[in-house]
Amino acid sequence: MGEVEWLNIFVIIVVAFVGWQAISHFNFVKHLLIGRPMKSEALRSNRTLLLWWIALPVLSADLYSSVAYGPESGMTELVQLGPGAKWLILPLTAATVVLLVILISSYIMGVIAYPNGGGAYAIAKNNFRQPWVAVTASSALLIDYVLTVAVSVSAAIASIASAYPAVSPYRTTLALICILALVIINMRGVADAASLLAWPTFLFMASMLALIFFGFADEMRHGFVQAATPAFGTVPKDLTVLLILKAFSSTCSALTGIETISNSVPIFREPKQKNAIKTYVALGIIEGVTLLGYAYHLYVRGISVNPNNTMLSQLAGVTFGHGWVYQLIIWSTFAVLILAANSTFNGFSQLAAIVASDGYLPRKLAQRGDRLSYSNGILMVAALASLLVAIFHSRTNSLIPLYAIGVFVSFTIAQVGLVRRWNRVKGRHWRAYRAINGIGAVVTAVVALIFAVTKFTGGAWMIIVILPLFVHFSLTISRHYQEVAGQLHIDLVKDRPVAHKVTSIVLISGIQRVVNNTLSFAKSLDTHVIAVYVGFDDASIEKVRKRWQEWGSPCELIVLKSQYRSLLAPIASFIRKLEAEKGKEDYIHILLPQFIMKKGWHNLLHNQSALILRTWLVLHKDVVVTTVPFHLKK
Amino acid sequence: MGEVEWLNIFVIIVVAFVGWQAISHFNFVKHLLIGRPMKSEALRSNRTLLLWWIALPVLSADLYSSVAYGPESGMTELVQLGPGAKWLILPLTAATVVLLVILISSYIMGVIAYPNGGGAYAIAKNNFRQPWVAVTASSALLIDYVLTVAVSVSAAIASIASAYPAVSPYRTTLALICILALVIINMRGVADAASLLAWPTFLFMASMLALIFFGFADEMRHGFVQAATPAFGTVPKDLTVLLILKAFSSTCSALTGIETISNSVPIFREPKQKNAIKTYVALGIIEGVTLLGYAYHLYVRGISVNPNNTMLSQLAGVTFGHGWVYQLIIWSTFAVLILAANSTFNGFSQLAAIVASDGYLPRKLAQRGDRLSYSNGILMVAALASLLVAIFHSRTNSLIPLYAIGVFVSFTIAQVGLVRRWNRVKGRHWRAYRAINGIGAVVTAVVALIFAVTKFTGGAWMIIVILPLFVHFSLTISRHYQEVAGQLHIDLVKDRPVAHKVTSIVLISGIQRVVNNTLSFAKSLDTHVIAVYVGFDDASIEKVRKRWQEWGSPCELIVLKSQYRSLLAPIASFIRKLEAEKGKEDYIHILLPQFIMKKGWHNLLHNQSALILRTWLVLHKDVVVTTVPFHLKK
Repeated sequence: MGEVEWLNIFVIIVVAFVGWQAISHFNFVKHLLIGRPMKSEALRSNRTLLLWWIALPVLSADLYSSVAYGPESGMTELVQLGPGAKWLILPLTAATVVLLVILISSYIMGVIAYPNGGGAYAIAKNNFRQPWVAVTASSALLIDYVLTVAVSVSAAIASIASAYPAVSPYRTTLALICILALVIINMRGVADAASLLAWPTFLFMASMLALIFFGFADEMRHGFVQAATPAFGTVPKDLTVLLILKAFSSTCSALTGIETISNSVPIFREPKQKNAIKTYVALGIIEGVTLLGYAYHLYVRGISVNPNNTMLSQLAGVTFGHGWVYQLIIWSTFAVLILAANSTFNGFSQLAAIVASDGYLPRKLAQRGDRLSYSNGILMVAALASLLVAIFHSRTNSLIPLYAIGVFVSFTIAQVGLVRRWNRVKGRHWRAYRAINGIGAVVTAVVALIFAVTKFTGGAWMIIVILPLFVHFSLTISRHYQEVAGQLHIDLVKDRPVAHKVTSIVLISGIQRVVNNTLSFAKSLDTHVIAVYVGFDDASIEKVRKRWQEWGSPCELIVLKSQYRSLLAPIASFIRKLEAEKGKEDYIHILLPQFIMKKGWHNLLHNQSALILRTWLVLHKDVVVTTVPFHLKK
Repeated sequence: MGEVEWLNIFVIIVVAFVGWQAISHFNFVKHLLIGRPMKSEALRSNRTLLLWWIALPVLSADLYSSVAYGPESGMTELVQLGPGAKWLILPLTAATVVLLVILISSYIMGVIAYPNGGGAYAIAKNNFRQPWVAVTASSALLIDYVLTVAVSVSAAIASIASAYPAVSPYRTTLALICILALVIINMRGVADAASLLAWPTFLFMASMLALIFFGFADEMRHGFVQAATPAFGTVPKDLTVLLILKAFSSTCSALTGIETISNSVPIFREPKQKNAIKTYVALGIIEGVTLLGYAYHLYVRGISVNPNNTMLSQLAGVTFGHGWVYQLIIWSTFAVLILAANSTFNGFSQLAAIVASDGYLPRKLAQRGDRLSYSNGILMVAALASLLVAIFHSRTNSLIPLYAIGVFVSFTIAQVGLVRRWNRVKGRHWRAYRAINGIGAVVTAVVALIFAVTKFTGGAWMIIVILPLFVHFSLTISRHYQEVAGQLHIDLVKDRPVAHKVTSIVLISGIQRVVNNTLSFAKSLDTHVIAVYVGFDDASIEKVRKRWQEWGSPCELIVLKSQYRSLLAPIASFIRKLEAEKGKEDYIHILLPQFIMKKGWHNLLHNQSALILRTWLVLHKDVVVTTVPFHLKK
C-alpha cells in the first residue's frame, strides 16, 4: 500500500472519528459547522424568485460543468485507435449536440405539462399505474446522482492537479475532503444564497466562450500545426462501430444534468413557464456552441490525452499561456464542478425524501435535520460517492463507464410518461407535443441501450445489476410499510388498554447496593416479585443463600446453577417454565440493573452482562424488560 | 493501493463478517469450529504430567523457534556496513550465547525459588510491595507476547514464501489467516494434545542439528568458497559501537521465550524441580550449539540477506539442494514458528487472566469461554497481532526493532525480585543464588537499555511510550474496581429494599395497536400513569387529542410541542419538571415500545427513536426505563 493510500485511510478515519466525537459531545461544534437548529416554521418563509438570466447559471452548473469531462472522455476512447482517429471527435460531438437539441425540446414539453416542476419520478407516478415504473425512474436517477457527485468532484480535483502537479498524488484525499465540505455546506442548507452561486458558472461560461473565440482568432492569424493532427477523414484500421458508439457514449456524459431546469420551474419569476423555456433555449445554445467549439479546438490543436493534465487545462495553456487567464479557467472549472456536485447533493436528498415519503425508501430519508435539510439523504449520497471516489482512486475516466445510463433510463421513462399524458389530457398542440416526446423517448431509449452495450464490460454491468435490485428492494420496503400499517391499526372502541397479572423477576448477582436499588423499585410496583440468582459453583451459591437470609429474605429467591458459565441458558429455561404456567395475557417482567459510569471508558471494565441479557431477552422472548439505573459516584 | 492489499482488506472483511454472522446465528457453526461448551468441572480433571524429554520440545518451541529469525535479523543490521562486516555475526552470536547461559542460570534460580511456577509477574508481586512493579512486568510481557505472535507468524510465512515464491505477494493475507486459525485452535483449548505438539519441535531441532552437522562434514571435505565471505577480522569503515550493539540487539531476539519452562514447573513429572532444571540445561546446550553452528555456516557459506528468501532457506538449499530434506526444513520451520505463536496465545491469555483477576485489567479477560479457555484474551492478542501484521506487511525485520524489549524488562524485574527474595528467605546456598540473580539482573537491565537506545528510532520508541501508559492505565483500572467495590458494599441490616411512589410515563406516537400494548402493561402496575405525546405541528396534535377522547381517555394525556423536530428536548424538559415536583426517593418510570421485527433488515426501515431515546434517558437521567416489546407478525 503506497504512503498516499495510508494517508487517505488515515485522514478518513481521523476526520470521521474526531468529527463524530466533536459533534456528539459538543453542541457548539455542531452549531459552528452546521448552524443552530431551525424551527419548522422557517420552511414556509418566502423564497426569492429568480430572473431567468440569473436562473440560467444557477440551474445550469449540472449540465454545463460536464463539458469539462464529456469531450475528454470521448477522446480517451478514440485515441485507443491511434492519433488517426482523433478527427472522429467532431462528428461525435455533432451527434451529441443533436441529442442535446432533442432532449431540450422534450424537456420543454415537460415544462409545459408540469409547470409545478415534475421530475421523471413525478411524471412516471402520474402516468403509470404500476409503481415499479416510477420507482425505476427514481432509482436510476438516485444512482446517477451518486455518480455525478463522484465524477464532478474527481474532475474538479483533476483540474487543480493539472495546474499544480504537486497535489496529484493526493487527489483521492482531496476529493474526499471536498465531499466532506459539501456535506457541511448542505447540512447548513444555505438555499437562499442561490444568486451568489450564479457567479462561478457565469465565469466558467465566459471563460469557455473566450477560450473558443480567442482560439479561433489565433488560428485565423497563425494557422495551426497540422503535423500534430492527422487529417480529417482518415479511417484508422481497427475502427469498429462498437468503438465509435463507445466514444459516443462517453461524450454523451456531457449531457447529464439537463433535467434540473424542468424540476425547478417554481423558482422562476412570472411568467414561470415562459421564462423556464427561455432559459432552456439559451442554455441549449450556449452548451451546443461550447461543445462544438471546444471539440474543434481539441482536434486542430492536437491536444492529446494525459491523465495528469486535463485537455481543458492543456488547451487553455496553449491558447493563453500559463498566466492569470489560465488560472482563471482552472479555478472556475473547479468551482463549477464543485457547484454541480453541490446541486446534486441537493437533488439526491430531495428526490430521496419524496420517494421515501411515498414509502419506497426508509422513512429516515424523509426527515428534516436541524437545519431543515434532509440530512440523512445528504449523508447517504456523500458516503456512497466517497466510496466510489476511494475505489476508483478519483479517476474520472474510470467512473465514466458507470455514468449516465441511469440518467438516460429516467429520461426515457419521463418521455414515455409524457406521451401517455398527451394521449390522456390532450390540450393545445397536443399531437405536436406528443410527437416531440415520442421522438425523445425513442432516441433516449436507443442511447441508453447503446450505453449499456458499449460500456458493459467497462463497468456498466454494475449498474445493470444494481438498478433492478434497487427497484426490487424499494418495492419490498413499500410492502413492509403497508404490512406494518395494517398491523398497527386499532378499533378505537373495541381495542382498549386492559390490566393483566405481572410477575416481576429481579436478576441478582449477589447481595450488593445495586441489588438493593433494583429490588426497591420492584417492590414499588405491587406485582409478584421473584429474585433469581445464577451461580456458577456451589460455594458462591451457598454464600448468596446465607446472605439472603441474613438480609431478611426480602422476597422469594430462586437459585439457578449454570454449569457452562452462561447466564442466558438457565434464565431462558426459567422463562420457558414461567411461560408454561402463566395465563395467556399475563406479563413476564424482568428487571435488570445498569451501572451508569461517570466516565465512558469505565464501561469497558464491567461485563455488560445486563446489557447483553437485555438485548437477547427483548429480541428472543416475549417479556417486558425494565432497566433500573445505578449511578456510580466516581 | 495494490491489488494484493485490496485482497487483504477484502479477505479480512469477508471472513470477519461471515464468521461473525455464522457464529452468532448458527450454534452448530460455533460448535463445529470451537467445539461444544464444556462444564466448569472439566477444569479439575487430572492433567497428564510430562517426562522431561517430552517437556523439552513442548516447552521450547517459543525459545528454539526464534533461531529462525534472530541471527538473520542481526545479519540484516550488519550488512548495512557492506559484506566486510559479515564476520561480526560470529562474536555477536557468541555474546548472545553468553547471555543465554546467564539467563538460563538465573531462571534455574527461579525454578528453585518458585517450584509451583512463577512468572515475572508472580515473582514481582511476591517481592515488591508497590503494585506498579508487578504490573510493569506483566505489561511488558503482554506487549511482547503480542509481538511474538506477529513475528513468529510473519517468520513462518516467510519460510514458506522462500520455498514457494509464488505466494510471496499474499504473505500478509496468509499470516492473517494463520492468526485466525490459531484463534480457533486456542478457543477449542486442546491443552491435552501437548505431547502431540512435541513432534514439530523435535523435527525442527533435528533438522537444524543435521544442517549444522552436514554443513561441517561438507566443509571438511570440500572447503568453502572464501570468495563469497570477506576474511574474519576485517574492520569495515563506518563501523560504530552503536551499529554493533544494534546488530547485537537484533540477534538477541533469538532469546525470547526462555521464561516458558520456569512458568510450567507443575506439568513435569516428579521430581519436578530437578526435571525442570535438567530440561533448562539440555535446552540451553541445544540452543547454544544451534546458534553458534548456524551463525558459523551463514558466515562461511556467504549467505546474503534477501527479503524474499530467508537465510535458513538459503543455507538449507546450499547444503542439501532443493529436495525433500529442504522441504522438511522449510515445513518444520513453519510448524515450529506456528507452535511458538500458539503457545504465546496461551501465555498471553493465561497471564492476562491472572492480572485481570487481581483487578489490573478488565475482568472480562479472566472469564473462561465455552471451552474453558480465556477467550477474550485470545481474541485480544489475535486482534493486536493482526493489526501489527497488517501495518508492517508481515515483514519480520520491520517488527524486530519493537521486539524483545518487553521481555528483557520483565527479565530484569524478575531477577531483582529473586535477589530480594534470597535476602528475605535465605535458605541453602542463598548467597550463591543471590549472586547469580544479581548478575542476571544487571546483565538483563543493561541489555534492555541497549535495546531501547539502539532500536529507539527503528520503532522501540513506541514500546517506550506504550509501556508506561499501559502501566498507568492498569493502575487506574485497579483503583476504579476498588472504588466500585466500596460503593456496592451494603449493611445487611440497615440497607433493605423499600417501596416508593412511582410515576409511569407512556410515550405515545399516535393511537395505534402498539400504544394499546404499552398502556396495557402500564395499567397492570398500579402506579400513576401519564401518557405523553410529542407533536411537531398543530394538525397532528389536534388529531391525537381528538382520537384520544374517542378512545375513552384511558389515562391523563400530556401533549408537548416540538418546534425543532426533536423528541429529546421536550421530553427532557418534561422530566426536569417532574423531578422538581417528586419526593427525593420517588421514581420516574418511562415506558417505551419496541418493535420486534421478523427480519433484521426491517429495523433499518423504522426510526429507532425509542431505542435512541432509551439509551439517552438511561445515560443522562435518573429514570427507570421499561421496554415493552411489540412483535410484528411479518
